[in-house]
Amino acid sequence: MPLTFLSDYGPGDEYVGVVHGVIASIAPDARIIDLGHGVPPQDVRTGARRLARALPYVPAGVHLAVVDPGVGGERRAVALRAGDRWLVGPDNGLLIDAAERFGGVSRAFDVGETPWRLEPVSATFHGRDIFAPVAAHLALGEEPEGEIDPASLVRLEPLVASAGAAIVLEVDSFGNLRLDAPAGATAARVNGHDVVNARTFGDVEPGALLLYTASDGTLALAVNGGSAAALLGVRAGDELRLA
Amino acid sequence: MPLTFLSDYGPGDEYVGVVHGVIASIAPDARIIDLGHGVPPQDVRTGARRLARALPYVPAGVHLAVVDPGVGGERRAVALRAGDRWLVGPDNGLLIDAAERFGGVSRAFDVGETPWRLEPVSATFHGRDIFAPVAAHLALGEEPEGEIDPASLVRLEPLVASAGAAIVLEVDSFGNLRLDAPAGATAARVNGHDVVNARTFGDVEPGALLLYTASDGTLALAVNGGSAAALLGVRAGDELRLA
Amino acid sequence: MPLTFLSDYGPGDEYVGVVHGVIASIAPDARIIDLGHGVPPQDVRTGARRLARALPYVPAGVHLAVVDPGVGGERRAVALRAGDRWLVGPDNGLLIDAAERFGGVSRAFDVGETPWRLEPVSATFHGRDIFAPVAAHLALGEEPEGEIDPASLVRLEPLVASAGAAIVLEVDSFGNLRLDAPAGATAARVNGHDVVNARTFGDVEPGALLLYTASDGTLALAVNGGSAAALLGVRAGDELRLA
Repeated sequence: MPLTFLSDYGPGDEYVGVVHGVIASIAPDARIIDLGHGVPPQDVRTGARRLARALPYVPAGVHLAVVDPGVGGERRAVALRAGDRWLVGPDNGLLIDAAERFGGVSRAFDVGETPWRLEPVSATFHGRDIFAPVAAHLALGEEPEGEIDPASLVRLEPLVASAGAAIVLEVDSFGNLRLDAPAGATAARVNGHDVVNARTFGDVEPGALLLYTASDGTLALAVNGGSAAALLGVRAGDELRLA
Repeated sequence: MPLTFLSDYGPGDEYVGVVHGVIASIAPDARIIDLGHGVPPQDVRTGARRLARALPYVPAGVHLAVVDPGVGGERRAVALRAGDRWLVGPDNGLLIDAAERFGGVSRAFDVGETPWRLEPVSATFHGRDIFAPVAAHLALGEEPEGEIDPASLVRLEPLVASAGAAIVLEVDSFGNLRLDAPAGATAARVNGHDVVNARTFGDVEPGALLLYTASDGTLALAVNGGSAAALLGVRAGDELRLA
Repeated sequence: MPLTFLSDYGPGDEYVGVVHGVIASIAPDARIIDLGHGVPPQDVRTGARRLARALPYVPAGVHLAVVDPGVGGERRAVALRAGDRWLVGPDNGLLIDAAERFGGVSRAFDVGETPWRLEPVSATFHGRDIFAPVAAHLALGEEPEGEIDPASLVRLEPLVASAGAAIVLEVDSFGNLRLDAPAGATAARVNGHDVVNARTFGDVEPGALLLYTASDGTLALAVNGGSAAALLGVRAGDELRLA
């Protein structure tokens, strides 16, 4: 069964490779597809959105995600069943949006004390010591213990923008902005800048700001041949005035 | 048949993983080798150079490349045959230099309307909706439709440096500079800094600037134990005075 | 036999992909696990630490590591046997700490002139021309020539901190600091900031500085929900006053 892996470990350190190594040691034949490790540090919301956006396009399997500011504390480590997929990660809301894409969580397991753990378990690297071995054993077709009530899972509170405003949810590597605003919304000005309601980048002049529907159906801002983040001087979490 | 994948998607977001996922869904046994996703955003020239430099060292197969500022507009999506290889990407010059390494384009196909597309096709993420499925089906040995004349393909205009100058084509992660200057050229000073014509970094004193032939045969500048980009204060696209 | 690969090539350029391509051309069935390519440029010490931390968690095989400021100069290219593993890279101390995790170097080979090299060998990209083919042939179970005395291998001089100080060895992508200080050491203040001696991030208030034992057993500093590097304004190589 294939595995996927998404995290906030960053592209540089050895953390991602160590998780691959643990999985390969337990399930040598399991293919692992990296779904990106550039989630901003400890940004559970962004991790949740990226995981939910990506999973419909990857083969069914075991989907490991680690954005885990509560590592080593009270938060549970969970394996969730949704459709024909397994989701593995911390119980902090990271996995729920993705599970909803496959009909929601049908079964849930607390794997924090699983015998599959690597002992001694560290206090700060559960990706290596708990989540990776759990994902690997699930990929081998084994069953977890410790079933819990799916209704007990932690969920993220929805963000609420001020009236007439939209929240910048994410800035991608092109400087494009994903907004927390209804798809199909239009605007003439954003933070005082003229904006064109368009379909794709080349529909506007080079350097012009456009409001469009991104490939996952959310509302987004971009600059043709440039960076909307730089033009508007905004970062994830900022509010924009749409008028 | 193995696949390779190069893009300007950046190392952090889920875009690269989604493309892997689409390919794995269609061609589960195809191995995918990432050739780097840090091409500067929308920099088709740099993407073209990196692809051409890399392909002679990777197994023959399907070579996917996406640097696509015109996505969703008039530009064609193409699959090109060069030697025993397939090149897949936008028709904006990105693939041509690589094709020349294998005898040039022998056959070309417009795949923008291929039945292999993922529907509905987004306006901004053809890597996912068009290029990935095309690459995957080619890796399965299937044949594309929509043959076009290779002479109709878009080609990049060559860069021309001013007299006595060289253009900085690329800055790598070490701060080494690749120049648009004839291999074998020598100089005593670059932008007023003394430079040593040398073979490798350790041939000069620590901190000294050297002019050398890079591993792909192009002329390059480096600082032993440092960054030529930082020393000279230049970026890709800048001109340097060689004297 | 599986391979792993760690380097300072950065996550963006095509260098990592080219090394994968060379290995795949020679040993098509060998799986390659990336152990991180974000080692700071030419920082042999950090590469050595990351390799040593990672290898106990990855399957035995051929372990390629390239952090190579002396490329093309006098330094040897080596393949080392340690336990049931092969370590391949430059003879500059990069591989020794990792070898110690498996009982030390039992046999050593100078592979700089191996017939496995890709000719012509460049002066600046031995990852491609020497190390990758050597790693691939070893993964195929072939034997190297050119045995040398393990006692002749280059070793790194240990760092020595001033009295009452600790050296910042590494800053990870979360801004956590690994220190060159005895595990189990405690402190009340670091560079004048109050610090809590704790087990994991959530054991202290958000924004508070904690001193803890990292997942590899070394002493480390972090900020709960933040960056210790930013709070203290330090970088790798800096000294911290512990009191």
